[in-house]
Amino acid sequence: MKKSFLFTPGPTPVPEPVLAALSQPIVNHRSSEFKEIIGGLRSELKKVWQTQNEVLILTCSGTGAMEGAISSTLKKGDRVAVVNAGKFGERFSKIAKAFELELDEIKVEWGSAVTIKQIEAGIQKAPAAFCFQINETSTGTLHPYQEICEWVRKKYPDCLLIVDGITAVGAMSIATDKLGIDILISGSQKAFMLPPGLAFASISQRALEKMKSSTLPKFYLDFAREHKSILENQTAFTPAISLIIALQAALKMMNQEGLENVYARHTKLSQSTQKALLAMGLKTATHSPSVACTTMYLPNGIDGRKLLKKIEADYGFRIAGGQEQWEGKVIRLSHLGFYTAFDLISALTALSRALLKEGYSHKTEDVLKTFIETYNL
Amino acid sequence: MKKSFLFTPGPTPVPEPVLAALSQPIVNHRSSEFKEIIGGLRSELKKVWQTQNEVLILTCSGTGAMEGAISSTLKKGDRVAVVNAGKFGERFSKIAKAFELELDEIKVEWGSAVTIKQIEAGIQKAPAAFCFQINETSTGTLHPYQEICEWVRKKYPDCLLIVDGITAVGAMSIATDKLGIDILISGSQKAFMLPPGLAFASISQRALEKMKSSTLPKFYLDFAREHKSILENQTAFTPAISLIIALQAALKMMNQEGLENVYARHTKLSQSTQKALLAMGLKTATHSPSVACTTMYLPNGIDGRKLLKKIEADYGFRIAGGQEQWEGKVIRLSHLGFYTAFDLISALTALSRALLKEGYSHKTEDVLKTFIETYNL
Repeated sequence: MKKSFLFTPGPTPVPEPVLAALSQPIVNHRSSEFKEIIGGLRSELKKVWQTQNEVLILTCSGTGAMEGAISSTLKKGDRVAVVNAGKFGERFSKIAKAFELELDEIKVEWGSAVTIKQIEAGIQKAPAAFCFQINETSTGTLHPYQEICEWVRKKYPDCLLIVDGITAVGAMSIATDKLGIDILISGSQKAFMLPPGLAFASISQRALEKMKSSTLPKFYLDFAREHKSILENQTAFTPAISLIIALQAALKMMNQEGLENVYARHTKLSQSTQKALLAMGLKTATHSPSVACTTMYLPNGIDGRKLLKKIEADYGFRIAGGQEQWEGKVIRLSHLGFYTAFDLISALTALSRALLKEGYSHKTEDVLKTFIETYNL
Repeated sequence: MKKSFLFTPGPTPVPEPVLAALSQPIVNHRSSEFKEIIGGLRSELKKVWQTQNEVLILTCSGTGAMEGAISSTLKKGDRVAVVNAGKFGERFSKIAKAFELELDEIKVEWGSAVTIKQIEAGIQKAPAAFCFQINETSTGTLHPYQEICEWVRKKYPDCLLIVDGITAVGAMSIATDKLGIDILISGSQKAFMLPPGLAFASISQRALEKMKSSTLPKFYLDFAREHKSILENQTAFTPAISLIIALQAALKMMNQEGLENVYARHTKLSQSTQKALLAMGLKTATHSPSVACTTMYLPNGIDGRKLLKKIEADYGFRIAGGQEQWEGKVIRLSHLGFYTAFDLISALTALSRALLKEGYSHKTEDVLKTFIETYNL
């Protein structure tokens, strides 16, 4: 028998209470009952986002929210600066190009975190929006987001700060208002322990102001319209009702644990996994690891695609591999969302046994010892 | 965050496909649809029981089936022989006493398996029924059931062999017909990976014959009536419909794995857990360990009740302790039902860390190494 276990940095495992909530009867989204649900979620999400402003609940993937953040706020011909340190940074560039915006792309080597120096060098002219990821999850890298926000706010006071916190919000403390972030995006299938289908975006007063003069084409992803709706405890269009009902259960679990404890757990899991994989002899693929996943180069001669298929076939664990230029070369072991130390012990054991079978010499017990001691289990 | 994880030898964890099946709409139990379900289950259960006879599906706990096996077949004043090597053996005695039967109780020290010599010495007169457990789960002990069946069948050809296979059927291969077992009992919340609420009992031709002259009082647990009903793909009274619907899903999972593989997995988990706990320095509480749970004495000075509460509070694992005379003195770590090697690795880690915190010196990594290597993971 195999139990299936997801170890990907999204979608992440869905806890039983959330699965049970997903099975609740559908409520009509124009009913007073549903408005009460949205009303409750509005204040809950503001707490997680650490914002006085509204957090939109959108029925789309994180990418939809990235597009909406740009298309809802910018004008034709506007200039955007984008940090591209991986697949998700590149996505901001692609969206900017799709809308024919002027683009300053700050290209960063995969596995590296961007520096302020690189940003300074990469910006040609004052941008209307600055877009970057807190975690670049294709490489498992944390960008110095506080420093970046501070720098942008100081250097370009009018510039919109559009931040992809898709694998960060709910897993680490992000002070949206304090950092001056205008739009902070996340998605349901990450720290929020839900299936995919919802995205979230906080909207600052500056962003609202910009929306008034926005001329880019949009309809479904029109944040001004969604903002107007959420003030009335509504969504502009038919939302993923079950996911919204279940979001209540997920937030309840997070609050029961306590957000600070949720963040501390993610930090501990990340640090312990990092050390355990180093004890396995693997080389880190990033020197600024994120709390979402730990990214490591596989040993020479090991084909990551085959290895991960074998781990799934033999043990039932679905561990993420590398994307694009890193395909087959790295693993990305997730600890984002509904994970405990015991889950990571299982995943590390499976990875270790599979690597041993491939002839990569090390000791499983040393890996587990390192994890257990670092976690202080 | 803690995830709750059951490590008790019943109730055992319920897999997602079974949970999903439990949520299916209720079918009326007198409908043709439900008769089809019972019809399908009849042939599936016969395969698991390795019998040509019927296997009753009863809505009661295993104890109900133990009572029904006696009350449905015996006459007032009949003599029964019972192997009492723990709490569950004792239960057969209590039932015999409740029905004022003559009783030969073969008392066996807790943790020991009964011997034929003890049985020979304990039987005063030819019994109408011989009752024993395959696994005495209060002590985690496997009785030499094949030898016992052979001996009883030879020595007392007319004696009913009533066998409690509650934690055995579905976890080990038991050749009901070949062994001449007249009534082999099991329960839903064990190897069958369901919530409690159903019991099962195979009924031999000899048992059917005995029912005709049975004079003990019974109504709900009347196996003759249930037998007549199941021949018509019915149950005599309103059954636990959801559990019966979900039993299909559980048996499907077992068949997909393959029964031989299910049995082999239980054997491997049992052997590996045994060796791992010995590597932890614990002393085995039985020299004939069952596939249902591994029972070990706790180190001197460790209060098992406190320890198990702490493991649950700190790590979310619910491990069974000792009962009655063994309360606080032993642990019974379950591997019965929906468990993989990774689950036991987690439980062993939790137990090991908790014991270390109590000052019991050993190395977690040695325990895990022993488990992983014995299991050949």
